[in-house]
Amino acid sequence: MFAALFGSRDDQAWLTAMVDAEKALATALARTGVIPERAASEIARVPADFDLAELGRQAVSAGNPVVPLVRRIRERVSAETARFVHFGATSQDIMDTAAMMVARNAVSAMLADVDAAADACAELADEHRRTVMIARTLMQHALPTTFGLKCAGWLVALDEAAANLRRLRFTAQLGGAVGTLAVFADTDVPRLYAEELGLAEPVIPWHTDRTRMGELAGALGVLAGVLGKIAVDVTLLAQTEVGEVAESSGGGSSTMPHKQNPVRSVLITAAARQIPGLVATMFAAMPQEHERAAGAWHAEWETLNSLFSILGTACTRTRELVTGLRVDRDRMRANVDMTGGLVMAEAVVTALAPAMGRAAASEAVTEIAKSGRPFRQALIDDPRIDLSEEDIDKALDPAGYLGCANEFIDRALRR
Amino acid sequence: MFAALFGSRDDQAWLTAMVDAEKALATALARTGVIPERAASEIARVPADFDLAELGRQAVSAGNPVVPLVRRIRERVSAETARFVHFGATSQDIMDTAAMMVARNAVSAMLADVDAAADACAELADEHRRTVMIARTLMQHALPTTFGLKCAGWLVALDEAAANLRRLRFTAQLGGAVGTLAVFADTDVPRLYAEELGLAEPVIPWHTDRTRMGELAGALGVLAGVLGKIAVDVTLLAQTEVGEVAESSGGGSSTMPHKQNPVRSVLITAAARQIPGLVATMFAAMPQEHERAAGAWHAEWETLNSLFSILGTACTRTRELVTGLRVDRDRMRANVDMTGGLVMAEAVVTALAPAMGRAAASEAVTEIAKSGRPFRQALIDDPRIDLSEEDIDKALDPAGYLGCANEFIDRALRR
Amino acid sequence: MFAALFGSRDDQAWLTAMVDAEKALATALARTGVIPERAASEIARVPADFDLAELGRQAVSAGNPVVPLVRRIRERVSAETARFVHFGATSQDIMDTAAMMVARNAVSAMLADVDAAADACAELADEHRRTVMIARTLMQHALPTTFGLKCAGWLVALDEAAANLRRLRFTAQLGGAVGTLAVFADTDVPRLYAEELGLAEPVIPWHTDRTRMGELAGALGVLAGVLGKIAVDVTLLAQTEVGEVAESSGGGSSTMPHKQNPVRSVLITAAARQIPGLVATMFAAMPQEHERAAGAWHAEWETLNSLFSILGTACTRTRELVTGLRVDRDRMRANVDMTGGLVMAEAVVTALAPAMGRAAASEAVTEIAKSGRPFRQALIDDPRIDLSEEDIDKALDPAGYLGCANEFIDRALRR
Amino acid sequence: MFAALFGSRDDQAWLTAMVDAEKALATALARTGVIPERAASEIARVPADFDLAELGRQAVSAGNPVVPLVRRIRERVSAETARFVHFGATSQDIMDTAAMMVARNAVSAMLADVDAAADACAELADEHRRTVMIARTLMQHALPTTFGLKCAGWLVALDEAAANLRRLRFTAQLGGAVGTLAVFADTDVPRLYAEELGLAEPVIPWHTDRTRMGELAGALGVLAGVLGKIAVDVTLLAQTEVGEVAESSGGGSSTMPHKQNPVRSVLITAAARQIPGLVATMFAAMPQEHERAAGAWHAEWETLNSLFSILGTACTRTRELVTGLRVDRDRMRANVDMTGGLVMAEAVVTALAPAMGRAAASEAVTEIAKSGRPFRQALIDDPRIDLSEEDIDKALDPAGYLGCANEFIDRALRR
Repeated sequence: MFAALFGSRDDQAWLTAMVDAEKALATALARTGVIPERAASEIARVPADFDLAELGRQAVSAGNPVVPLVRRIRERVSAETARFVHFGATSQDIMDTAAMMVARNAVSAMLADVDAAADACAELADEHRRTVMIARTLMQHALPTTFGLKCAGWLVALDEAAANLRRLRFTAQLGGAVGTLAVFADTDVPRLYAEELGLAEPVIPWHTDRTRMGELAGALGVLAGVLGKIAVDVTLLAQTEVGEVAESSGGGSSTMPHKQNPVRSVLITAAARQIPGLVATMFAAMPQEHERAAGAWHAEWETLNSLFSILGTACTRTRELVTGLRVDRDRMRANVDMTGGLVMAEAVVTALAPAMGRAAASEAVTEIAKSGRPFRQALIDDPRIDLSEEDIDKALDPAGYLGCANEFIDRALRR
Repeated sequence: MFAALFGSRDDQAWLTAMVDAEKALATALARTGVIPERAASEIARVPADFDLAELGRQAVSAGNPVVPLVRRIRERVSAETARFVHFGATSQDIMDTAAMMVARNAVSAMLADVDAAADACAELADEHRRTVMIARTLMQHALPTTFGLKCAGWLVALDEAAANLRRLRFTAQLGGAVGTLAVFADTDVPRLYAEELGLAEPVIPWHTDRTRMGELAGALGVLAGVLGKIAVDVTLLAQTEVGEVAESSGGGSSTMPHKQNPVRSVLITAAARQIPGLVATMFAAMPQEHERAAGAWHAEWETLNSLFSILGTACTRTRELVTGLRVDRDRMRANVDMTGGLVMAEAVVTALAPAMGRAAASEAVTEIAKSGRPFRQALIDDPRIDLSEEDIDKALDPAGYLGCANEFIDRALRR
Repeated sequence: MFAALFGSRDDQAWLTAMVDAEKALATALARTGVIPERAASEIARVPADFDLAELGRQAVSAGNPVVPLVRRIRERVSAETARFVHFGATSQDIMDTAAMMVARNAVSAMLADVDAAADACAELADEHRRTVMIARTLMQHALPTTFGLKCAGWLVALDEAAANLRRLRFTAQLGGAVGTLAVFADTDVPRLYAEELGLAEPVIPWHTDRTRMGELAGALGVLAGVLGKIAVDVTLLAQTEVGEVAESSGGGSSTMPHKQNPVRSVLITAAARQIPGLVATMFAAMPQEHERAAGAWHAEWETLNSLFSILGTACTRTRELVTGLRVDRDRMRANVDMTGGLVMAEAVVTALAPAMGRAAASEAVTEIAKSGRPFRQALIDDPRIDLSEEDIDKALDPAGYLGCANEFIDRALRR
Repeated sequence: MFAALFGSRDDQAWLTAMVDAEKALATALARTGVIPERAASEIARVPADFDLAELGRQAVSAGNPVVPLVRRIRERVSAETARFVHFGATSQDIMDTAAMMVARNAVSAMLADVDAAADACAELADEHRRTVMIARTLMQHALPTTFGLKCAGWLVALDEAAANLRRLRFTAQLGGAVGTLAVFADTDVPRLYAEELGLAEPVIPWHTDRTRMGELAGALGVLAGVLGKIAVDVTLLAQTEVGEVAESSGGGSSTMPHKQNPVRSVLITAAARQIPGLVATMFAAMPQEHERAAGAWHAEWETLNSLFSILGTACTRTRELVTGLRVDRDRMRANVDMTGGLVMAEAVVTALAPAMGRAAASEAVTEIAKSGRPFRQALIDDPRIDLSEEDIDKALDPAGYLGCANEFIDRALRR
C-alpha cells in the first residue's frame, strides 16, 4: 500500500547484484588462473532465483545474507566447483559490491527522471520568459520577476543535483577476510572483478573507508533538497489565494469540488522530508571499527533501501509535476497588481533618483506608499513626484523592471 | 531478505486498523442516531481483505489510501448503506486513528520483549552480585565493579524505556474535513468512536497538533538508545582480547573457527543506529500547515513503519541476547588482575590516608604505580608504605572495593 | 551577533552549577561524617568566578572541565581542606549533575514563556470564537472554521509540550569513579547531595544510562515542533495574498514599503528547523560504552548548549508573537468568500440530503460547482436543487457550518 | 569553556566577510560606472570594526544582521556616498556571499590539518609495512594484517575527504531584491563582484537554490566520518586489554595512575558524533520558499557555525593524534599470537588444499581448531595433516599470510 506512495525495497535487485558479484569473482579468478575456467563457467550459469525470505531468515544467525547465499550457490554446482564459489572473498566484498551496483542502478534511474524534469524546466523557462509574476521574499510580495526565471532556477538546481550524482564513484570491493587478499594475493583479481562488473577499481579495499557511502548520501541529500524546493514552490503557488499554477491532474476531492490538491507536490515534499534523517544515518555510520564494523556497516543496507525507494519515487513524481504543470499567466499578472503598484515603489525611486537624489526620493515614495491611498493616484497627486503620468506608468510597469531576468534564463539554458 | 534482519512494513496492520476505524465511526454514528443501526451493522461485516497493492496505486492520485479504501468499502455494502460509509469523516481521521492503533500494537509487542529482557537482566544482576569485573571508563581499566551492577544498570534503563512507552497517549482522531465535525456536529460521536476502538478521546481534534507523534518518536528514541547501550557493552565484552561474555549461539565463521561473532549485538547496534535519523524526521514533520499539512503529515507513515519494524525486531533480539548471555567469570577476574593490581591504587591510597594523609599517600602510590615494577611487590618494598603484607593484599583485593554495588543492585531489583 | 538571533551558550551557568555540585558534595560528606564540617564550610565559600577560558584550555588535555576546576578550587582553600574537595567523586558526577541543573533552569525559563504563550492563545481563542475564517487542507480552501479554534489548537499543543517538560526528571549524579561509591561506600551521601541541590535522587548512578538525556531531547523536540507549527501558520496567514494576521511590529523593509515581514515567525521557524538534528544527536549519543563513554558523553554538552539557547530564544519569540498578533477579521471573512461559496458545497449537500439522498445531492452539487458559474446563482437556477433562496443562503452561510468549533474551544480553555 | 573543546563561533569572521562583500559590491559598481569611483573608495576604507552585540540586537527586528550593518556603514561615510552603500543589493546577497567566504576560510584551515594528518598517516603506513597486527572483524580476531595497511586505509580516506572539500564551489551571490538585478540590470557587476572577492561567479543568482550548501554539508559529513573512523580505531586499540597504540600525551588520571586516556580520540569522536545531525539540518533547510525562505535560510547560519567550529577543532586534533601516535609493535605481535595460531587456520587450509582438497582440508582444520587443544601441537599430532612441522610453522607464520598488504600500501602512498 505504502510502496506505491514511497517506493519499495527491491530485494531482488540486491540478490541479482550479489550473485553477479560471485560470478565476476569466479571469472576474475579463472582469468588469473587461480581457479579452473570450468568452475567459473559453471558458477556463471547459476540463476539468481533463490528464495529471498529463506535467505533472510538464515542471514539473521550469520549477520548478513551472503553466508546463506554462498551455501545455496554451492548446492547448485558440482562438488568440484563448489569449493571455488566465493573463493578468497568475504561476505562484505559481496555485499559492498552489490550495494554499489544497486546504487548505480538506482542513481541511473533517478538521473533519467531528473534530466527529463530539467528539460521540462528548460522549456518552461523559455516559454515563460515574459510571464511576469511577483517574486516573494519571506512569503511577502517583493518585486516582479518572471515565471521563466523561477523555472530557470529550478533547472540550474536540478542540473547541479544531477552533476553531483554523475560525480559519484561506484567502486567494486574485493579484499578477502580482512582486506589483504590473503588467500590468492593477486591484485589482478580485483582489477578484473571490477572490470567484469563495470565498476571502478579502488586504490585499496575500502571495507571500513565509507567515504563512498558518505558521498552517495550527500548527493542524494542535495537532490532531495532540490526536489523539495520545486515542490514547495508549486504548493505555495497552487494555494487557493494564489492560484498561479496547478498540477496537471488528480487531487480532486469528492466532497469539496472546488479543491484541486497539489498531490504530486505533497508527495514529493513528504519524500524530501524523509531524506535528511536517512542521510544523517549514513554519515553517522561512517566511523566503522577496525576491519569490519559491528553494526554500523549493517545499518547502511535498510537506509540505502529507504533512500533509493523514497527518493527514486520522488524523482518520477517531479518529472510528472514539471512536465504537466499548468500555468495561469493572468492570475500571475493579477497577483502582481494586487498591491496597486506598491511593489514597484523601488522602481519609482529609481526613476526619481537622478533628479531629486536617491535618499529624498526614497523618503517621499515611502511616505506615499504608507499613506494607504491608491499608489498610482497618490504619486500623480504628490507635488514632490516630478514625473509625468506616462513616466509614472512606465515606472509602475512590472515588465519594465525585470533587470537581467531574461539574460539569466539564457545562461541557465546554455548549460 | 532484509525483512528478516530489520523487520518489515506491516501494511495489513494498517488496512485492518483503517477498516476498524471506519466501522467504529459507523457504530458511533448509529449509537447517536446520525445513521441507521442497519447501516452500521452492514459496515461492521465488511472484512479488511482489500487488495493492498491496488489501494496503494489509487492512493497516489488521491494522496492517501483512505480515499480508495472508502470506495472499496462502499462497493461491498448496499447502495443505501454506501452513503453512510465514512460519513462526516475525512481521510486524516481514518489515517491518524489507524496510525495510533498500529502504534499501540507495535509498542505493546515491544513492551513484551523489553519486559522480558528486563527480567533477564534482573536475574543476571542477582546471579552476578559477586562476580567481580573491571569497570572501564573511556575504555580504559578503572576500578573493579561487579557484572551484577552492570546488569542492574541495563535493567534500570530498560525499565525507564518501558515506563516511557507506557506513558504514551494513543488517541483517536475524528474531526471531519477541517476539525469542526461540521457534518454532524455532535461530540458524542468522537467519544463513542474512541471508546469503540479502545483509544483515548482527545481534548479536541489533533490533525495538525502532532505532539502525540513527537512523544511517540521520543519514547522510541529512548528505547533505541537503551538497546544500543546493552549491545555496545556486549560487543566490547565479547572482543577476543576481553572475552568476558559471549552470545548464546550463532555467529560462527566457516573459515575462521576461532571467531564467535556477537551477531545479535551487531544487529541491535545496526538497528539502534538507524533510529535517531528516523526520530528526527518525526520531529521535523511536526510543524504542519493549517488544518492539514502538505507533505509533513504524509512523511510520518513510512517513518513510523521503519521505526516499528526496525526497533521491534531489535527488541526481540535484545530479549534473546540477555536471556542467553554466557558469562565467563574467570575471564572477568583475570582481566581485573591484568594490570597487576594497579587498578587498586586508589584503594591503597585510601588505606594509607588515615596515617599519612591523603595527599602524601596519593603521591607515594602514584610514584610507585608509575615505576613499572610489579605493583604489589613495589608496595611491599617501599619504605613509605606503612602497611603489612596482609593489609596490602586486603587493599589490593578488588572484591573489597566495590562500594555500594550490592546495595545498588538491591535498589534496581526492588523497582 | 548570532547570539541575539539564536541565543548563546551560557558557560557561566555550567560553571556555577559545577561549583554548586562540588559544594553540595562536600556538605553531604560532612553531614555523613566522611569529611569535617569545617572543610565543607570552607568549600561552600568558594565563589564560582574562575576563568572560563583557562578552564576550557586545560579541559582539552583532561577531556573535561572538571579536572582543572577541582585544581582551581583546591588552590582556593586551605591545604587541609584541599584533599576533601571532590572527595570520592568523578568528573562525570559533577558534569552530569551540572547538566541537570543547567537543564532544569533552561527548561524552567522555557516554561515561563510557553505558559505565557498558552495564555495568550487562550485569550485569542476566546476572543475569536466567532471569527469565521477558511480552514485550509493541503493549503487549499476546505471548509470554514474559526480563528478561535485555530488558536485553541495552538493552546492545546503548547499545553502538551509544557506537560512534557514538567514530566522531566532532573536527577543528581553521584557514583564515584565507576558508579560504586567505592571511596566512601555510603548511599546517604548521594541522597543528601541530591537533596542539597534540589534534584531527584536516582535509583542507582546513571553515568551510562542516558534515558534522562533522551527524555530531555524528546521533550525539547516536541516543543520545537509546536512552536514551529504556530510559526508556519502565522507565516502562511501573513502572506500578501492572504493577509489575515500580522506580527505586532518589526519586519519593515526600507526599500519595499509594502512589506511587513513576519520576522518573529521566520526566526521561530529557523530555530525549530535546527532542533530535530540536535535531538537526533542526543539520541545517537545514548549508547555509551561501559562505565564512561569515549566520546558519546562528551557529544552531549555542546548539543545541550545549542538546544537550550536556540529553543529558549524561540520560546520568548513565540510568546511575543502570539501576545502581539494582529488579526484582520475582515480579510478572514473576505477569504472565506473568495471562492463564491464553493467551500460551502458540502453544506448544500447536507441540506439537500434528506430530500434527495446524499449521493444524488452530492452529484448534483458537484456538477454545479464544477460548471464555473457563480455558485449561488447556479444553485438557484438549477431545477434539481429543491431549496428556497433563503435555504440556499442559509446553507451558504459559513457561520452556520462550524460544527463543534465553539465546544472544542471551551474544552481547550477548560484544561 | 566549551569553546576550547569544540571551537567557537567566529562572529568577527562573518562581519569582516560581510563588510568585504559590501566593498566588493561598491568596487564592482564603480568599475561598471553605476556609482562614482569616489564612493567606492570611501566605502573601501570603512573598517570592519562594528559592535557585534549591537548588530545582533538590531538583527532581531530586521531578521538578519545586514540591515543594521548597512546603517552603520552609511554612518561612517559621507552623505553623498551613503546612498551608494549596498546599492542594488539585498541582505541575502551579502549574507550568502559572506557565508561562502567564511566557509572557504574554514575549509581551507581544515584542509591544512587534513593534509598534515594524511602525511602523518603516509609515514606511519610506510614505517609499519612489516608491523604485523591482528585484523579484527566485528571486533573479533580475524586474520593478520599490518599496522601499515591500517594507516594506509586512514590515508586514503583522508585523501578522499580532502578531495571532496577541494571540489566545493565557493560562489558569490548577487541578485538584488529578488534575483533579477533590477536596480542596475548589468551582469558585469556580479562578475566583477565575484572576481573582487576571489569567489566563483554563479550561472544565475542562487538565493533559493541551496545546492552549494548541501554540497558543503555533504563534504563536511564525509570528513567527520573519516575522522571518526580514525578515532574509533585508536580508542579501541588503546583499550587496556589491547594496548597496541597510545596517544602521545595527556589523558592521565590523578587517582588512577595506570590510566592513559585517549583524550584526543575521545574528543574527535565527540565531534564526529555531532556532525551528522547538523548536516541533516543543512539538507532539511534546502527546500526554500520562492525567492527567499521564511526561516530555512536563517537556519543555516548557526548550523554552519557549529559545523565549522566543531569539525575544525576535530581536524586539528586528528593531526595531533596521528602525528604523535605511539605504536607498540610487541603488543601487536603478542595479540596476534594470543589465540595460539587459530587465526592462521585459513592459511593452514590453504597449505593443505593442493594435496587433500580445500573442502576436506577445511573440515579437518576446523575440527582441530574447535578441539580446544593448543593449535600447533594438535596440527602436528593429527594424522590427517600431511605437513611437516616446518610447513606447519610456515603456515602459522602471520608474516607469511599478508596477501597484498604491502602492494596496497604502495598504491595508497602513490596517490
